[in-house]
Amino acid sequence: MYLDGNSLGPLAVGVAERLRRTITDEWRSGLVRSWNDAGWVDLAERAGGKLAALLGARPEEIVVTDSTSVNLFKVLAAALSMRPDRTALVTVEGNFPTDRYIADGVSELSGGAIEVREVPRSALRDALTDDVAAVFLTHVDYRTGERLPARALTALAHQVGALAVWDLAHSAGAVNVHLHAWKADLAVGCTYKYLNGGPGAPGFVFVATEHAEAAANPIAGWWGHADPFAFADRYEAAPGARGFQVGTPPILSLAAVDEALWVWEDVPPDALDAKAASLTDLFIALIDDRCDGLGLSLLTPRESGRRGAHVTLRHPHAYAVMQALIDLDVIGDVRRPDLLRFGFAPLYVSHVDVCVAVERLQHVLTTEAWRSPAYADEATVI
Amino acid sequence: MYLDGNSLGPLAVGVAERLRRTITDEWRSGLVRSWNDAGWVDLAERAGGKLAALLGARPEEIVVTDSTSVNLFKVLAAALSMRPDRTALVTVEGNFPTDRYIADGVSELSGGAIEVREVPRSALRDALTDDVAAVFLTHVDYRTGERLPARALTALAHQVGALAVWDLAHSAGAVNVHLHAWKADLAVGCTYKYLNGGPGAPGFVFVATEHAEAAANPIAGWWGHADPFAFADRYEAAPGARGFQVGTPPILSLAAVDEALWVWEDVPPDALDAKAASLTDLFIALIDDRCDGLGLSLLTPRESGRRGAHVTLRHPHAYAVMQALIDLDVIGDVRRPDLLRFGFAPLYVSHVDVCVAVERLQHVLTTEAWRSPAYADEATVI
Repeated sequence: MYLDGNSLGPLAVGVAERLRRTITDEWRSGLVRSWNDAGWVDLAERAGGKLAALLGARPEEIVVTDSTSVNLFKVLAAALSMRPDRTALVTVEGNFPTDRYIADGVSELSGGAIEVREVPRSALRDALTDDVAAVFLTHVDYRTGERLPARALTALAHQVGALAVWDLAHSAGAVNVHLHAWKADLAVGCTYKYLNGGPGAPGFVFVATEHAEAAANPIAGWWGHADPFAFADRYEAAPGARGFQVGTPPILSLAAVDEALWVWEDVPPDALDAKAASLTDLFIALIDDRCDGLGLSLLTPRESGRRGAHVTLRHPHAYAVMQALIDLDVIGDVRRPDLLRFGFAPLYVSHVDVCVAVERLQHVLTTEAWRSPAYADEATVI
Repeated sequence: MYLDGNSLGPLAVGVAERLRRTITDEWRSGLVRSWNDAGWVDLAERAGGKLAALLGARPEEIVVTDSTSVNLFKVLAAALSMRPDRTALVTVEGNFPTDRYIADGVSELSGGAIEVREVPRSALRDALTDDVAAVFLTHVDYRTGERLPARALTALAHQVGALAVWDLAHSAGAVNVHLHAWKADLAVGCTYKYLNGGPGAPGFVFVATEHAEAAANPIAGWWGHADPFAFADRYEAAPGARGFQVGTPPILSLAAVDEALWVWEDVPPDALDAKAASLTDLFIALIDDRCDGLGLSLLTPRESGRRGAHVTLRHPHAYAVMQALIDLDVIGDVRRPDLLRFGFAPLYVSHVDVCVAVERLQHVLTTEAWRSPAYADEATVI
């Protein structure tokens, strides 16, 4: 019962075999020739293109590259250079910590000229003054599972001339994402959660076609050059997402992403969304029904349109409860100090899985199995 | 006859098996638990530590992370923040283009406050005025194979209070590198060339212990946080090299690097240097002897102490010549428009390989085999 695909997706059919080929046929036998012969040279673009239908974008608007954090740095700096007369970046409280660290880092690099405003969700409208270059938001909250109304918030940003930058780490492959319908300007996301690209696999960058010329990657490396192998004296960016590459891509990790994406070919985003809603609805209903009075409280919104594909419950002994549950083959994760997180990857989690998971959680809580000393040590948990 | 280990190193014994375990045992079976159980969580630090002896550094001073280009961006910005009253970065003409692009990008981010000075090698001393925050140099030139006197140039930088930042892309695993003896401040390098880490494998960052507190990574991501899993509101950098990580590392590519490094355990850096000198000496002597009057000219310094482990020859039809040579199973590479590059990875290239390579090159040139129409198309060459 794997309910942690929101942290690390499983190995998809075909990926191990693809990697075997990449390692033995391409690296061992083909060696340097594989940059051309095996198509390594544009693998990042081809993998990005495979995400287009799922994310409501064009193939050339997405590239798979670097980590999500490095990518956020690049797109925030790009957004600032596209609004050179503006000095603020705005986000809401509770955004993923690394997103705020990255923005603070951009501010520090500017010598404090750029201000990062972190406001409560309710104050977002008021914070959008005409000095705001960009609003950067995470579509689905990593902790609470809350999903933001992306189209409305993008429109709000545009009303004051700001750009909308979306972090799709907990949405891509989980719920309906339609970057064109939202009119999103820039976006980043993660491939190793719901997209099953493998541990720490490179993230992705989306650059809307209308910004393909204006959006400049501040980390100007040769892989984002219009003609990398000219080794020209001066940097000339490849347009759009392609220009958001920096160095030579990690081919083994990238090949895993590229291969894993075949499973999305025939998945309609609406069906994904409906399945996520159905699974999480069922989970919440069963928790209400079976675990009432057992010390749990729900952190995730009850309205399915307002959440992603994971559900978070509070329990004062979250760590021990999760360890006991893992011993019963139900794998979720915890976030300190008191959150139990259950991910319902719509691609492969079934309604039966949900029923069994709740049954076992109920068992752990009613028997107080979590009180076993074996579950007392809190190790690093990812 | 693989003379391109300076571009992509071969698959070392044990790496395919390690990756098989990482993919099937750790990812497929262990899933998210492998962050702890398989030690993924600190793999980047352990791999970095394995480079310490080879590079004359302490294990905790090196981390394997991101691409070399992204790493250079981080250390250049860190150097500037360590010399906040200084406004110039200095390098020499002919440095690897991406290194200059990256520095120019740092300058652009500063709104032009930071100046990048690119001067001829002979003018370096004069360019080092007291407004220079850092000198950034590539130890071994990717084109000519020239090796710079790292200890002397580091001392020159220190004389004016500037930091010395070294790019070791073409030196690590090729020649003697001793960061402590040089008194280097910061360094970056590549693991997929002479270190055989796999195509596009993550690079490394070195931060000297004395700068562990002062050197701040401008891309402040959670993986470089002192306590990443606290998901704290504010960024608090892990000290030294560890803090130069940003996002979740690409485990498949990183595992390949980690495994490939076993081969360096008993390699004395001096022996590496001596073998590189011996191989390249022999190659140059044989080219002089066997290929005289065949249209080649030597771009690499003749004095072995002034070059790395690769040798570059000019020929007006370099691309076609190399294609003909590859058809005779001698693999080197070309750099536009007219350079033939031969890498003599001291770890596995033998003196016999050198003799055979020159014999075949002589054959290609005397028979003019390169004039075949089959070799006329210039594809992208990496």
